[in-house]
Amino acid sequence: MEDKLQKQIEFIIEVDKLKKICRQSIITDSSRAENDAEHSWHLALMAIVLKEYANENDLDLLKVIKMVVIHDIVEIDAGDTYIFDVEGYKDKSEREIKAAERIYSILPDEQGKELKSLWEEFEARETNEAKFAASLDRLEPLILNSKTKGHTWKKHNISSDKVKEKNVHVQEGSKQLWSLTNELIEDCILKGYLTR
Amino acid sequence: MEDKLQKQIEFIIEVDKLKKICRQSIITDSSRAENDAEHSWHLALMAIVLKEYANENDLDLLKVIKMVVIHDIVEIDAGDTYIFDVEGYKDKSEREIKAAERIYSILPDEQGKELKSLWEEFEARETNEAKFAASLDRLEPLILNSKTKGHTWKKHNISSDKVKEKNVHVQEGSKQLWSLTNELIEDCILKGYLTR
Repeated sequence: MEDKLQKQIEFIIEVDKLKKICRQSIITDSSRAENDAEHSWHLALMAIVLKEYANENDLDLLKVIKMVVIHDIVEIDAGDTYIFDVEGYKDKSEREIKAAERIYSILPDEQGKELKSLWEEFEARETNEAKFAASLDRLEPLILNSKTKGHTWKKHNISSDKVKEKNVHVQEGSKQLWSLTNELIEDCILKGYLTR
Repeated sequence: MEDKLQKQIEFIIEVDKLKKICRQSIITDSSRAENDAEHSWHLALMAIVLKEYANENDLDLLKVIKMVVIHDIVEIDAGDTYIFDVEGYKDKSEREIKAAERIYSILPDEQGKELKSLWEEFEARETNEAKFAASLDRLEPLILNSKTKGHTWKKHNISSDKVKEKNVHVQEGSKQLWSLTNELIEDCILKGYLTR
């Protein structure tokens, strides 16, 4: 096997570990925690289905999908940091940058740099693609929570104000998905899944 | 929520069930079976990383990724049919067509038709994108088997001839990945993971 392909296969094997990184969200049948690989797949599917709601019409969908497919790879080393975990967020960025350096350097140089830079673009949330990808990344756990009676909100005693605050940038990627976010939150409050 | 978006969200919730469809392959740490959502994510990542090895230079990568993201959705109803399961393959196509009709019709009409047609294109394996997607769909379980001491081959008593026979169309999508397939098979024989 040529050296370049060998590095690429090594990377493909390394990222299998993402299937073991558990998130706070549980899947819709409430049987267990969702993992990062499943979550990333769900976002890719959502990007395909919901593209028309992006604020920007000429969005590069391929770029969005690439972003969501790779966006959590750093968690292989850095672990999943729950969005409401104040302590964990203090060194989240540092841990993730270190992880990105190790994991993307498994790939051939140029490709590793390209994917690492795509992850940085996602994190910076400045381009239209990153903004839309971030909207999906917020909406998916909200949908899972709404289908599992607010499982993670109840577990961590999170109020609707906190949820809104943490999801506010959904509107940067999609005004329509931001309306949906608010509708879902109101519905969850009515159903008693979330406190006002 | 407008009717169209409601259908799309309903579809996004429905496909969460793919996270519960277990495959024969086990993940690289050998702790459990891989599920379809994880598998589909892994293929999307492989498409991004291995695109350069496609026989066709002007491959539409977005189409390949869309295909692999949706390719197993029918298994929500039809279940996973193991590639060496002769009995299961008898009505696999029938079961899957029925599943596609139900699941894709959850979406708004036009979008449902578009994604169903993309799945049909994947299944037909006639276009360059479908051929490359199929190559990845074969290579991924081979890689998992090679990292888990031939787990599923041993479990079902599968010989290397059978593996080669079932993977032969990898070359239609990528000659280089076909060479890799053969190298991996030879290596697994040498290591005792696979009988000659």
